[in-house]
Amino acid sequence: MTDTEPPRPGEIAVELPQRFDAGLYFIGTIRTPWKTRAECPKNPREAGDAICTIELDARYAPGLEGIAPDSSIVVLYFMDRARRDLVIQVPRHSGKPSGTFALRSPVRPNPIAVSVARIVAVASTRLSVTGLDCLDGTPLIDLKPYRPAVDAASTADENRR
Amino acid sequence: MTDTEPPRPGEIAVELPQRFDAGLYFIGTIRTPWKTRAECPKNPREAGDAICTIELDARYAPGLEGIAPDSSIVVLYFMDRARRDLVIQVPRHSGKPSGTFALRSPVRPNPIAVSVARIVAVASTRLSVTGLDCLDGTPLIDLKPYRPAVDAASTADENRR
Repeated sequence: MTDTEPPRPGEIAVELPQRFDAGLYFIGTIRTPWKTRAECPKNPREAGDAICTIELDARYAPGLEGIAPDSSIVVLYFMDRARRDLVIQVPRHSGKPSGTFALRSPVRPNPIAVSVARIVAVASTRLSVTGLDCLDGTPLIDLKPYRPAVDAASTADENRR
Repeated sequence: MTDTEPPRPGEIAVELPQRFDAGLYFIGTIRTPWKTRAECPKNPREAGDAICTIELDARYAPGLEGIAPDSSIVVLYFMDRARRDLVIQVPRHSGKPSGTFALRSPVRPNPIAVSVARIVAVASTRLSVTGLDCLDGTPLIDLKPYRPAVDAASTADENRR
């Protein structure tokens, strides 16, 4: 969906600010088996053991020092095909209007996805990982070591689905 | 630390690209009890039950529809005082050089923090939460519902610290 298409019935678009407040560098590219949105798994669990490759730009190569296989990593990436102006969306799977911040939809003011992946192998600036479900060619924004104290909800059972 | 200070011994800075690849909107502000970096808790666990307030800009208010107390939320915020050009850093606590992507340091090409917070109360565009450890006035970038399938490592025990 692009900004030029009208919202679906029940959806609400807002006027975004005229200027950005900060800038992002794309620091690499995520290679996956999925070339279209329709092919993408619905979530990382559905992606199963599919191997994706995180290709970091050579400029940032030393930044991988200390990253090893068999650890978990938080991957931030930019969903650059999504419109950014919807505050109420009607997801196809539910058909019910919901606030953007109550959804994991790529459509949001800042279309940054956060996903925890498992590192299978590291070869120079390429990380082979499982647990991602994004489109092939997705721009990479950041990698962080996974820390349960920061990243896991302590009492998240009621959110489990 | 700003870009104008020299890196510490053992640290490596790179030349960043001349242009940004995408833009961010600051969509609100995080109010916390901590006015300086020295006052900030070292991690969310140390922050304990300190209540912080996420103030969403009125423009995006409908986006909170469906967000309720006693749930966990993924908070993305921008660490706008950090330099962005270090690929190897020497954290004060360890004194050992490490790759930026193996650290949770605010110093990184895209200084976006990800933290899971617990919603205590919702009043219009203000969310009272626990679990954040950032500076007062930190710009908000995104809120997402916490989903263990995406956000929790399935076998993260060896990362636990």
